[in-house]
Amino acid sequence: MLEFSHFNEQGRARMVDIGDKHETNRTAIAQSSLLLSEEIYNKMTSGSIEKGDVLAIAQIAGIMAAKQTSHMIPMCHPIALTSIDIFFQWERTEDANRLIITCSVKTRGSTGVEMEALTAVSVCALTVYDMCKAIDKGMIIGPTFLVKKTGGKSGNFTRIE
Amino acid sequence: MLEFSHFNEQGRARMVDIGDKHETNRTAIAQSSLLLSEEIYNKMTSGSIEKGDVLAIAQIAGIMAAKQTSHMIPMCHPIALTSIDIFFQWERTEDANRLIITCSVKTRGSTGVEMEALTAVSVCALTVYDMCKAIDKGMIIGPTFLVKKTGGKSGNFTRIE
Amino acid sequence: MLEFSHFNEQGRARMVDIGDKHETNRTAIAQSSLLLSEEIYNKMTSGSIEKGDVLAIAQIAGIMAAKQTSHMIPMCHPIALTSIDIFFQWERTEDANRLIITCSVKTRGSTGVEMEALTAVSVCALTVYDMCKAIDKGMIIGPTFLVKKTGGKSGNFTRIE
Amino acid sequence: MLEFSHFNEQGRARMVDIGDKHETNRTAIAQSSLLLSEEIYNKMTSGSIEKGDVLAIAQIAGIMAAKQTSHMIPMCHPIALTSIDIFFQWERTEDANRLIITCSVKTRGSTGVEMEALTAVSVCALTVYDMCKAIDKGMIIGPTFLVKKTGGKSGNFTRIE
Amino acid sequence: MLEFSHFNEQGRARMVDIGDKHETNRTAIAQSSLLLSEEIYNKMTSGSIEKGDVLAIAQIAGIMAAKQTSHMIPMCHPIALTSIDIFFQWERTEDANRLIITCSVKTRGSTGVEMEALTAVSVCALTVYDMCKAIDKGMIIGPTFLVKKTGGKSGNFTRIE
Amino acid sequence: MLEFSHFNEQGRARMVDIGDKHETNRTAIAQSSLLLSEEIYNKMTSGSIEKGDVLAIAQIAGIMAAKQTSHMIPMCHPIALTSIDIFFQWERTEDANRLIITCSVKTRGSTGVEMEALTAVSVCALTVYDMCKAIDKGMIIGPTFLVKKTGGKSGNFTRIE
Repeated sequence: MLEFSHFNEQGRARMVDIGDKHETNRTAIAQSSLLLSEEIYNKMTSGSIEKGDVLAIAQIAGIMAAKQTSHMIPMCHPIALTSIDIFFQWERTEDANRLIITCSVKTRGSTGVEMEALTAVSVCALTVYDMCKAIDKGMIIGPTFLVKKTGGKSGNFTRIE
Repeated sequence: MLEFSHFNEQGRARMVDIGDKHETNRTAIAQSSLLLSEEIYNKMTSGSIEKGDVLAIAQIAGIMAAKQTSHMIPMCHPIALTSIDIFFQWERTEDANRLIITCSVKTRGSTGVEMEALTAVSVCALTVYDMCKAIDKGMIIGPTFLVKKTGGKSGNFTRIE
Repeated sequence: MLEFSHFNEQGRARMVDIGDKHETNRTAIAQSSLLLSEEIYNKMTSGSIEKGDVLAIAQIAGIMAAKQTSHMIPMCHPIALTSIDIFFQWERTEDANRLIITCSVKTRGSTGVEMEALTAVSVCALTVYDMCKAIDKGMIIGPTFLVKKTGGKSGNFTRIE
Repeated sequence: MLEFSHFNEQGRARMVDIGDKHETNRTAIAQSSLLLSEEIYNKMTSGSIEKGDVLAIAQIAGIMAAKQTSHMIPMCHPIALTSIDIFFQWERTEDANRLIITCSVKTRGSTGVEMEALTAVSVCALTVYDMCKAIDKGMIIGPTFLVKKTGGKSGNFTRIE
Repeated sequence: MLEFSHFNEQGRARMVDIGDKHETNRTAIAQSSLLLSEEIYNKMTSGSIEKGDVLAIAQIAGIMAAKQTSHMIPMCHPIALTSIDIFFQWERTEDANRLIITCSVKTRGSTGVEMEALTAVSVCALTVYDMCKAIDKGMIIGPTFLVKKTGGKSGNFTRIE
Repeated sequence: MLEFSHFNEQGRARMVDIGDKHETNRTAIAQSSLLLSEEIYNKMTSGSIEKGDVLAIAQIAGIMAAKQTSHMIPMCHPIALTSIDIFFQWERTEDANRLIITCSVKTRGSTGVEMEALTAVSVCALTVYDMCKAIDKGMIIGPTFLVKKTGGKSGNFTRIE
């Protein structure tokens, strides 16, 4: 049975030792989403210049947050990310407008980048919320989850729908 | 019809002017949650010292993130928060273990603290994910939403379930 | 004759005491610019979506930097800015393409916001440089200067051309 | 008997509510010191330009750290400091060279600035250590303590030698 | 005789060039302590949940500070730490209660991690002070010193008691 | 024709993938300057202790900013800098006093350090402005530009005067 690896002999938190882990190429893809009102959807997609900007701002916030992950998540190791890319997609049904946010992160290092990808999509979604909350505070963020990771000793992971 | 307030005459983003808004007491309560495996639930609640620590670490991460909100969310105003409090609660059904994270934030200032509360619960959830991901990477974060806000010209907001 | 106010009795730097200064409305407007090649100008203004994005990214960087000013400039006081707005303008002559960046910052506080406005335009210009440097590294940033300030005991300032 | 005020009803940490506390003038003075080798003392005081610089750098590090206190100390409230001043003093006996570092911090706010003053002298001392450690790693930092505080409901405090 | 290595030809500070230094495994162990009143000692060790939490919070603050060292100490190089571990120990005599804080830091890189270990124990101690200062502001932090370092051209160092 | 490399397939910003780039020694030298009044020039060079300090403070601000570049410039990769050095020089004509600021930055990594050098001289100049603005707010910062870079696939660059 796997044990929590973040605890030392005193039962207290530590940043686990990755000094012996190999440097390999590592990637992670995470996803979040926002459930938005029709009014917000229309404004964001009406072709006005604002549309691009809400997503552009959210995206930059997500990218900058990915680089700050180890300063936000206490036990995360600092990692020199080599690539961060965020994509947006709309998913509409009769009574729901959902903005899907996907982030792909890469590094060559001794530990995975799952937290960086998850942090990026989370802050990206929070920024969309911030930009649109004057119109409707009822937006819902999430579900937020890891889609896929590759590289490292713990092996690959792919979410099963 | 309300307009996006974050855009200037050039259609570009700005940090909106709150200089004329009154300083009032403002509160916001936000909520997030994590859907966890039975194994993680058992480890976190088995009475071992680790239990307290995972949540303690997550909570500190959430509190510290609330204070960094304006450095993470591009158009957020810097606000001197006067209180941050985070609560945890377990919600169990036959096939689901859900950790509910609630954060209440207060200030006396010229703008609301919704983003600070939402950021706190988001980073808190991300930290739980980080601490437990060695056991299972399939955890799901969210839904994340605003429960309530009071104070300010835009009035109160209470989420309707 | 005015003395350097940032030095204490030991002749060493200090963050000067503003505790007795009145809280007044304060504004500052600063300007910077970039001298760009024809090729960069054409790409930025060719109507492709990239145009908006380079400036959008630069602008967000500038806004976020304004909020970090007191963490970058050692003797700057932390100030809760109430408004940050950045504008862009092109100035073209036969052999020069200049992007003018103007930032206006406001607060209600005990010290001025000149440094915040100057920091915003500087980081904004650096970001344009970063986004375009793959095309041409010969861009020139500046001159960067204070255009105007109002509020505070030292009175108003308006740059004389 | 006074209780730990940083814990909520769940026995977990919170940033305590200072929303009802009065804004008053508050000051704090803290002190730290370094015990240095004769060799380091001689180099720092030999009149070479380096002398001023080691202390100048340490002092700036201390001032900048004071402004970051609420981002370092988890339960500290963000406070807009109005003044930070750091002084140095040498205390020499036959077999000890001690650099005394004193920091005075002021604010007008709802909570004290003891932590800001203590953080400033601590980071100031760490910086002197960093600048001199190529010569001798045996330096000792501390004792570090609060000398005095004024303002606020908990009243004044003066250290009894 | 060793010279200050942090100064350039103009006698001004610089971040020294470590580009030619070899990447080796490096470790550092630093120690700090707090002298606490009987009342604080009793509260911290009375078996109440608070006990764990004060130390848990302090420890996380220390770990997060270690990762921020190069942003706090001006001439420190950014280093990707591979491990951070903090331990606590009580040392009691008839009239003194001392909490010993020890931190061990590792990296594989071109420069040592002494400053990271020293910064971690310093911020850890400051956080304990912050959590307990409502009970007694007379706590004393330190002595703080390097216990041991290994790796790098300057060789190993072990403190002689 | 070179394309903007910071945009993904959706035409939105990304942090470009440098995972396949070779680690090589990279250097960059950037320059900025300030045009100062006679009064400021005299004060800064009158042999008073303040002279050293204004430049010392500015220099430290520049060095610390270089280490924060990837947190300020949205699409910049985090890079572990191995060396940062800043030089000052006065250039005087009959009616102009110009302080020249030059910064040289080095790393061994997968991407260049032009932005780090440019950020350092910019923040260095802003700090001089901040220290002297009580005397005269009419100082002009810039021109700011890249002097030289070496290393990396895009080859060397040397500014042609």
